[in-house]
Amino acid sequence: MGHLDSISSPADLRELSPTELEALAAEIRDVLIRTVATNTGHLGPNLGVVELTLALHRVFDSPRDKIVFDTGHQSYVHKLVTGRYAAFGTLRREGGVSGYPSQAESEHDLVENSHASTALSYADGLAKAFRIRGEDRHVVAVIGDGALTGGMAWEALNNIAIQHDSKLVIVVNDNGRSYTPTIGGLATALTALRTNPRYEHVLDMVKRRLNAVPGVGHAAYDALHAVKKGLKDAIAPQGLFEDLGLKYVGPVDGHDRGALEQALANAKGFGGPVIVHAITRKGYGYDPAERHEADQFHSAGPFDVQTGAEKPKGKIWTDHFSDSIVEIGARRPDVVAITAAMMHPVGLDEFARRFPERTFDVGIAEQHAATSAAGLAMGGLHPVFAVYATFLNRAFDQVLMDVALHKCGVTFVLDRSGVTGDDGASHNGMWDMSMLQVVPGLRLAAPRDVTRLRELLDEAVEVSDAPTVVRFPKGSPPEDIQAIDTAGGTDVLVREGEKDVLIVGVGAMATTAVAVAQRLVDQGIGVTVVDPRWVKPVDPALVELARKHGLVVSVEDNGRVGGVGATLLQTLNDAGVTTPFRLHGIPQEFLDHAKRDVILTRIGLDAQTIARGIVEDVTALAAGRSLVDADHTP
Amino acid sequence: MGHLDSISSPADLRELSPTELEALAAEIRDVLIRTVATNTGHLGPNLGVVELTLALHRVFDSPRDKIVFDTGHQSYVHKLVTGRYAAFGTLRREGGVSGYPSQAESEHDLVENSHASTALSYADGLAKAFRIRGEDRHVVAVIGDGALTGGMAWEALNNIAIQHDSKLVIVVNDNGRSYTPTIGGLATALTALRTNPRYEHVLDMVKRRLNAVPGVGHAAYDALHAVKKGLKDAIAPQGLFEDLGLKYVGPVDGHDRGALEQALANAKGFGGPVIVHAITRKGYGYDPAERHEADQFHSAGPFDVQTGAEKPKGKIWTDHFSDSIVEIGARRPDVVAITAAMMHPVGLDEFARRFPERTFDVGIAEQHAATSAAGLAMGGLHPVFAVYATFLNRAFDQVLMDVALHKCGVTFVLDRSGVTGDDGASHNGMWDMSMLQVVPGLRLAAPRDVTRLRELLDEAVEVSDAPTVVRFPKGSPPEDIQAIDTAGGTDVLVREGEKDVLIVGVGAMATTAVAVAQRLVDQGIGVTVVDPRWVKPVDPALVELARKHGLVVSVEDNGRVGGVGATLLQTLNDAGVTTPFRLHGIPQEFLDHAKRDVILTRIGLDAQTIARGIVEDVTALAAGRSLVDADHTP
Repeated sequence: MGHLDSISSPADLRELSPTELEALAAEIRDVLIRTVATNTGHLGPNLGVVELTLALHRVFDSPRDKIVFDTGHQSYVHKLVTGRYAAFGTLRREGGVSGYPSQAESEHDLVENSHASTALSYADGLAKAFRIRGEDRHVVAVIGDGALTGGMAWEALNNIAIQHDSKLVIVVNDNGRSYTPTIGGLATALTALRTNPRYEHVLDMVKRRLNAVPGVGHAAYDALHAVKKGLKDAIAPQGLFEDLGLKYVGPVDGHDRGALEQALANAKGFGGPVIVHAITRKGYGYDPAERHEADQFHSAGPFDVQTGAEKPKGKIWTDHFSDSIVEIGARRPDVVAITAAMMHPVGLDEFARRFPERTFDVGIAEQHAATSAAGLAMGGLHPVFAVYATFLNRAFDQVLMDVALHKCGVTFVLDRSGVTGDDGASHNGMWDMSMLQVVPGLRLAAPRDVTRLRELLDEAVEVSDAPTVVRFPKGSPPEDIQAIDTAGGTDVLVREGEKDVLIVGVGAMATTAVAVAQRLVDQGIGVTVVDPRWVKPVDPALVELARKHGLVVSVEDNGRVGGVGATLLQTLNDAGVTTPFRLHGIPQEFLDHAKRDVILTRIGLDAQTIARGIVEDVTALAAGRSLVDADHTP
Repeated sequence: MGHLDSISSPADLRELSPTELEALAAEIRDVLIRTVATNTGHLGPNLGVVELTLALHRVFDSPRDKIVFDTGHQSYVHKLVTGRYAAFGTLRREGGVSGYPSQAESEHDLVENSHASTALSYADGLAKAFRIRGEDRHVVAVIGDGALTGGMAWEALNNIAIQHDSKLVIVVNDNGRSYTPTIGGLATALTALRTNPRYEHVLDMVKRRLNAVPGVGHAAYDALHAVKKGLKDAIAPQGLFEDLGLKYVGPVDGHDRGALEQALANAKGFGGPVIVHAITRKGYGYDPAERHEADQFHSAGPFDVQTGAEKPKGKIWTDHFSDSIVEIGARRPDVVAITAAMMHPVGLDEFARRFPERTFDVGIAEQHAATSAAGLAMGGLHPVFAVYATFLNRAFDQVLMDVALHKCGVTFVLDRSGVTGDDGASHNGMWDMSMLQVVPGLRLAAPRDVTRLRELLDEAVEVSDAPTVVRFPKGSPPEDIQAIDTAGGTDVLVREGEKDVLIVGVGAMATTAVAVAQRLVDQGIGVTVVDPRWVKPVDPALVELARKHGLVVSVEDNGRVGGVGATLLQTLNDAGVTTPFRLHGIPQEFLDHAKRDVILTRIGLDAQTIARGIVEDVTALAAGRSLVDADHTP
């Protein structure tokens, strides 16, 4: 071992012999496996791009040439060879190496890209800019076959194809999977590969892939692999790209560094946009990952390096949703489920197994997911689209214009809402409760525990004339909190002493609110804690409760601007309720990565900080002062 | 004349002879031309689909079968033959026939679809629903060639292609134009048509099309028309669809009703998804429209029926933007312009003429527009993406994650913000100032007049480390209002008497605010009117002004929820400023169509209503009452 120690920049890679490069690749895999086993992270995708990343950095001259990774979680290898090996043990930890590219970390990083299908658009812009400025640089976009199912990748290809003098190389990293298998027609792809001189070499790998689990096929994927075409038409899988007027090179074995370098060098020399089609294997070189049927350790850890055995995890929010939706599906034949290429991560795999004809994996296509859901609702069904909260941003227009305007009964289930933490800024689900406030008629529920998740999901799928949303966070749910009373649709969780303070705990923050209340009660402050359950529209009972208290405090794991607290403040103002108001939420900025708890404390969304702020607020109000400068959510 | 009188439902069409249908088509064109000449509306697209619509309604059985028009402004003919001929004279007027499909109007209407590229997704959902429910119905989606450049159309095709038993017919209404010409390779398409038995018939039409103005080509369009392929490969334009595994019928002359009916009947009988490729001419049958080079009377009127001469219009906001951006382009070689298939409507045509190498028409692809702009900015340029406000919703995720997270200097120019009126609910630009509030670092300007438009656009393109937005309404700008003073970045427009009321007039509503002030002064109420110019971030000077007044009134032509007023209220609350606050904005609901002024008065955003409300508020406050139940924005 020891080659990585000597690599401080990509230039060092060009000094190594083929044998040394092979040893380096093995060393990199070892570092990847050991680090992710401890720190968690994206393992499978990075094991699959070791040779590809080495080849890219030997053929292109970063940072002069620009490399953009679509879904930047495949950038670990890139990080290891661009000066971040020594720090790699801090991967995904607070203050440590990010799990995504980061401009702050390195001049070799440009795009912190976790929302898929964007790389081609960045690359198109970069290549146009270099041309206009007369700079002789190349742009490389690395995009998975799964990301090609996303609409904006097609928009980009459509534009790139007419930029005949853009020095742009598109590497399609074709591992047959996005998160879950999209395999459909490798037998035909085999035929395609036979025309390739490297056929014998590639054959073995392809044969092994044929043993993988077949999953939901997608037409773009099929087209990419020349599926459904006659033998004569299937002599190459490039039809789709060539129809768009794009030059195509491949397929090439993505684990044959020499072949990759040759293909990339040819593409580099072409002088216009070129597609290089590389066949890779997710998890390559680590048996437990290659054998892992669900997702090849797509996002993994902690696990045992020797056996690949993952440490047992408790039941997470997703699992409870999974149970509930299966139960609903069993009694409601009109309920259908939709995922955007994340069947397992969003907990729909069991529903899909039980009700395959009522489950649709639409690819990485949130827009189509939302609008086809509107169509399904118009056709008399009740669709449930389960998606990570941050990815619903992709379908804002469709939720508004296609679902809400047409009063369609569609339920959106937002997993990983609030602070998700170690995946970095773009994964936090801190936008949904603001973005969705503007949608007329939409109803939004934030369950505080798994009993409420079940109840609210049941209520949501009963609504047939408007979109409904149920959002819950990442990780393990808290203990159930039983209501001691109700007011309108609002649950009262704590009612102690005088009506000094009303705390509105939104969703998972209800547990925090109850903890805050205990601290206040200990200091002799009267407090009521409520959970509105449905946070949109505002419950009129909440307005009346606010009127009767000395201070209203809202606590939500959503951006402060325009969220639940902000809308409650506006509603109270409209109603002439002038009770002093303190809003606790996520500061409206892009958060650096760290564990969820660490971030919540850092931003002041922990019980201790909130309680301290309330005591100060109550003291100020008692002294006749206003709440100036008392903003405790930095 | 007189056939239309006898058509009360599509079934009546099936009783007519070919000769009668030809007469009916002529009668329909006459009604379209005369109505739009007076009422304004979408003429060119509807003249192009007369025969197609008649054929659809003779072959399919609406409302049992479902017809979804992508961009519903091509539904006038459909309306005339589904019972709305008698009412058609009220087109686009308050309480009259909508310019888009409307479920409230007719059981034959399903989707009020003005945001392009959505029809295929609805249709996919509908067809799946009918299959699951065991209902034997057909779904027809009519989509233009331009709309196929939108990413979500691709997402849908990708999914439809694997629904082998969906009874779904996709009619590609190929007129070679979206708003502006996308013509690129008709010579090759001619070759394709030669293999078609109807070649001689179609030839004449195609020849005429060859005389049209060539515009910016798009690869998907080129592919559709078999451009850039060798003669051998170009025997049919269907390659792109067949690569996706879709059955293809065509091309067929879209003005030959008999041929269309035959093609549609074949498609209907196939039992799986089929594409029918119809070649139509925008403006067909009305010489002034066919000869109209800019857009074939895409959206027209009022005009003279005999000559097609449009009534002279004054200079609108768009024209002033056009002047400014050309001036900026002349002095700033790093400024590039982007449009999403609306070069002329957003006022970029002169910029494109002057700086063709710095202008990009990306197709109907707002997502790619935003993210390629991020790439252009990373490459050292300053992109200006001009777009209708409502269409930016399509790129919310890209503005947030791709532009703002990466601190890219990209300027978004939002035309037709606020109430646009007669195009209906989905065209109003009433969402942007709420949606964009959540974007960290983004700066948003709302110019009150054309002098401010010029100033603020100049300031916006100077910002290199964050997205900037400049938004202005539809129509003619008001007279300039000179500031009498400034406070921070805020313009003081009126300062009369005591500090009873501070009115914050946002953008075009500043003129209304000044008119309100005059009424208040007449009644002895002291008033200050300010225009913050940059409404995001909130100007600290505004907070101090609010602190010193007895009542703060915000007036904006944006949804009330989460907009400028709501964010100001939240900022004041954070700062401990407890001045009573009254928020005037657009009620958070989908607005029925009518003229802009009619709507503004209906929703209480006129000077008289606002002034009356303020007088009541001031009276209530003087009497020691709160502002309960005094919400004057219904």
